[in-house]
Amino acid sequence: MKVDLPDVVAEVSAAFAAYEKALTSNDVATLDALFRKDSRTIRYGIGENLYGYDAIAAFRAARNPAGLIRDLSKTVITAYGRDTAVASTLFHRSSAPGRIGRQMQTWVRFAEGWRIVAAHVSLIDVPDET
Amino acid sequence: MKVDLPDVVAEVSAAFAAYEKALTSNDVATLDALFRKDSRTIRYGIGENLYGYDAIAAFRAARNPAGLIRDLSKTVITAYGRDTAVASTLFHRSSAPGRIGRQMQTWVRFAEGWRIVAAHVSLIDVPDET
Repeated sequence: MKVDLPDVVAEVSAAFAAYEKALTSNDVATLDALFRKDSRTIRYGIGENLYGYDAIAAFRAARNPAGLIRDLSKTVITAYGRDTAVASTLFHRSSAPGRIGRQMQTWVRFAEGWRIVAAHVSLIDVPDET
Repeated sequence: MKVDLPDVVAEVSAAFAAYEKALTSNDVATLDALFRKDSRTIRYGIGENLYGYDAIAAFRAARNPAGLIRDLSKTVITAYGRDTAVASTLFHRSSAPGRIGRQMQTWVRFAEGWRIVAAHVSLIDVPDET
């Protein structure tokens, strides 16, 4: 198991950046395209548990696009082999002072490209150690 | 990319069950052993953001072992290829009525065996759709 092969990290970093740009601009088509179209794709969101691509796409379509801008910190992208990576980041929104977001995504390379197969996003009070 | 090869799913399901048993019995040695010993291993917990194996182990060692018993629901383990899997589950504790836990783990196979390389645990109010 080779960890952090540079070309793999570069590919996933580009995909991660494309996702972030789409998220903050509420580009729903790109967000949908970056999740794997499969019933086993899962996204635990800030207030919802979404099982399957269709549930995730329905959530995106209905989402209020206001206030999505955010700053990231402590972003770590680690590649395991040539076909898997995990992207973890904290995020902060001026609309939620005193709270810190955590986003973790597992990316897998398929014939059609890199796709998110699992994601978990949550908000907590800022802990002492952060 | 072959998804859900039965022998891979069986292996990760066994590792997931071992983790759950260790968690609810506060078997810290087993919990530590199942996380990859590396500075890039990340665990976002219910109230803390832990970067690196050492931070995770320190958290385990200091944790109050009371009230860890829980029930799981909607557990999904999906294997991507032979060396990667994601385990997602909801959990419920009688000590936290009206709240639902979400736990997502990414498992990778190394020479030493299956290890968790990233985990995210969070608690939310029970959403309408769950």
